[in-house]
Amino acid sequence: MNGQQAYLEQLGQAAKTSGFALANLGIKAKNQLLAAIATELDADRSTILAANCRDVTAAQKAGLNDAMIDRLQLDDARLSAIIADIDNVIALADPVGEEFDNRLLDNGIRLSRRRVPLGVIGVIYEARPNVTVEIAVLALKTGNAVILRGGKETRESNVALAAAIRRALDKEGLPADCVQLIDNPDRALVNGLLKLDKYVDMIVPRGGQGLQRLCAEQATIPVILGGIGICHLYLDKDADTSRAADVIINAKVQRPTVCNALDTLLIHQDKLDWLPKVAEALKEKGVRLVACEQSRQRLLNAGIAADMATEESFATEWLSLTLGIQVVRDIDAAIAHIRTYSSGHSEAILTDNLTAATYFMNEVNSAAVYVNASTRFTDGGQFGLGAEVAVSTQKLHARGPMGLEALTTYKWLAIGDYSCR
Amino acid sequence: MNGQQAYLEQLGQAAKTSGFALANLGIKAKNQLLAAIATELDADRSTILAANCRDVTAAQKAGLNDAMIDRLQLDDARLSAIIADIDNVIALADPVGEEFDNRLLDNGIRLSRRRVPLGVIGVIYEARPNVTVEIAVLALKTGNAVILRGGKETRESNVALAAAIRRALDKEGLPADCVQLIDNPDRALVNGLLKLDKYVDMIVPRGGQGLQRLCAEQATIPVILGGIGICHLYLDKDADTSRAADVIINAKVQRPTVCNALDTLLIHQDKLDWLPKVAEALKEKGVRLVACEQSRQRLLNAGIAADMATEESFATEWLSLTLGIQVVRDIDAAIAHIRTYSSGHSEAILTDNLTAATYFMNEVNSAAVYVNASTRFTDGGQFGLGAEVAVSTQKLHARGPMGLEALTTYKWLAIGDYSCR
Repeated sequence: MNGQQAYLEQLGQAAKTSGFALANLGIKAKNQLLAAIATELDADRSTILAANCRDVTAAQKAGLNDAMIDRLQLDDARLSAIIADIDNVIALADPVGEEFDNRLLDNGIRLSRRRVPLGVIGVIYEARPNVTVEIAVLALKTGNAVILRGGKETRESNVALAAAIRRALDKEGLPADCVQLIDNPDRALVNGLLKLDKYVDMIVPRGGQGLQRLCAEQATIPVILGGIGICHLYLDKDADTSRAADVIINAKVQRPTVCNALDTLLIHQDKLDWLPKVAEALKEKGVRLVACEQSRQRLLNAGIAADMATEESFATEWLSLTLGIQVVRDIDAAIAHIRTYSSGHSEAILTDNLTAATYFMNEVNSAAVYVNASTRFTDGGQFGLGAEVAVSTQKLHARGPMGLEALTTYKWLAIGDYSCR
Repeated sequence: MNGQQAYLEQLGQAAKTSGFALANLGIKAKNQLLAAIATELDADRSTILAANCRDVTAAQKAGLNDAMIDRLQLDDARLSAIIADIDNVIALADPVGEEFDNRLLDNGIRLSRRRVPLGVIGVIYEARPNVTVEIAVLALKTGNAVILRGGKETRESNVALAAAIRRALDKEGLPADCVQLIDNPDRALVNGLLKLDKYVDMIVPRGGQGLQRLCAEQATIPVILGGIGICHLYLDKDADTSRAADVIINAKVQRPTVCNALDTLLIHQDKLDWLPKVAEALKEKGVRLVACEQSRQRLLNAGIAADMATEESFATEWLSLTLGIQVVRDIDAAIAHIRTYSSGHSEAILTDNLTAATYFMNEVNSAAVYVNASTRFTDGGQFGLGAEVAVSTQKLHARGPMGLEALTTYKWLAIGDYSCR
């Protein structure tokens, strides 16, 4: 075993052992811990902001773009918001401990399922210091130990944040190793973490396609893939065009850099003459259009510029003010397009026709399927989950926005009377 | 792309497309399909039994042991039992289509979760022809397409069984590719199947440690690991010894070759003098004892032979008439032993003490935790699930015995009124 392997073994072992100390804590003790974390972070403001300042300086030197620097930067107000968010998590109901499917078996055994923490969660994420606090708090709220691996650009901030969290754990008489940070930027540690199946129960990668793929390919631990959204909106022939433009614009421009933003507009051929109207409004918002041949021609005729769509462009998650457009013959062609290009995140139909709406909901099998609503609603907060661990685009365990329950599993409890089979 | 890759691509694509045809079938149509499969299998008896006969002959030539040959052999009665089991699946409730967590969001959107098929399930299993029918039927009942990869020793039987199933699909107007069999014994196809994440939603390996490990390491698709049980029974100081022996014997000898059979007896030190009594009864049943130093000494003093336990023996799933024995100081030592050696399958405590029982249920975090009952109850049928896809020992998606619901996922449905965020 080399040094790195030994380090990872120790990390995993410490997380697993610490997890046992959390598993049966009552909600009062867990909320008290969360409050203590808020207190420590607040008391540690100057240290945290100084550390973040070093990260920002290094990022500027390294020539990171402004958007990235903005995402990793903290200030007093942002830190206050992070701390205030802890109160929101304290206010959430704790799913742990619930018993369900309670039944008396024919053989006299009383059987039930009890919701329990997963144990140890590994989270790999990018240069966003707020995620360090957010994930630690959600994991602790559900009685899980967590191993954090944040982006190297926020290393200093994460070290300072994790230190404050660990101090709170310690003050509450709990093992500090309930929250551990891998602060060594060596990429080999990510690969090592992905194979710690002896200790880690779930990996949540919060990042782009490359990270998701790495986890799918390297992990021997169950991974929750997600956060990649190639999202579609189908404008049906029976859509109310007097109201449709607002939804399309909202889905595309309200926050174009996130996974639930619209990527492709599928427009029924009968509505093609309406296309220039919404296209003009989109153009005014700065949206670049990437259109199929038929729609592009119609747009050009109306004096609206559009690039030519390709197979590749339809398979692109834009994360920017770009919108693909495809004319479809009918609803089946729209569904076929979605089945070919969707990442299984969020799709919408705009229609006043009940049959079309029902058919679309039945046949489209993405995590979230909308009738007459913007894809932007796919979000733990919007869905009333109170928190969002990630948005899963796979089908096992949790699908779509993941709330606290996604950080739990269940065990079967069976009480007999010296019962034999 | 080489020939094998092209074959796998086509297999996956066909499964995915076929799955869409199943996804929205009503329960009546699905049950009619299952009945048609029973009819075809019945009509095909002579072909199936002849194929199986070829497998048996080949297995005998290859020198397989009697137990293995017995497992792969079919006769008229066994085939009748397989067919009759289809009626049991027909009688089960269909989890697909259920809507739950229906709620009206603040923004006026009506949100719910609808239970839907996973899509495509890949199942890798050993030389048991009954599994071919069982898994195909469970998958179809829940609207899933399935790719089957059975043991090479039952290749001929599986080809005949799959042909009958596919004929039934065809007669019911459904794509035959809803059920596909990989009948080429090349192991590389298993590795290829494990990476078909573009088409396959879940892999269920039904086999030993080697297969489970291969899947954990190679799959880019979510895998349900399971079926490995290093199971413990802790005899507490407050156990009723007049009733305990029956449970211990049942857990060990009622069916020693399966995953929920007992592997290690943990005995409280105060009960050590009672050990020879149960040990004698176990010996009478042909059980070999592998005991820790203290218990071995006590047994030897009573004239009962026992082998010496080691770290390795405690980490062994016996699958045979062998029982490990470890004396423990107290309940915490028992729990520590379980945490070290358990595979997370099934553990039991025998006690009349409520505090001990509660503590054990809280602190032991295996898929099934028993108080005063044999570990042998961990089974889909015993738990009232009606069917058993597998017994999961991981914590995501499904844990313990997996019924039909484990072959489904959900999608979020949201109905708005041209709603924007």
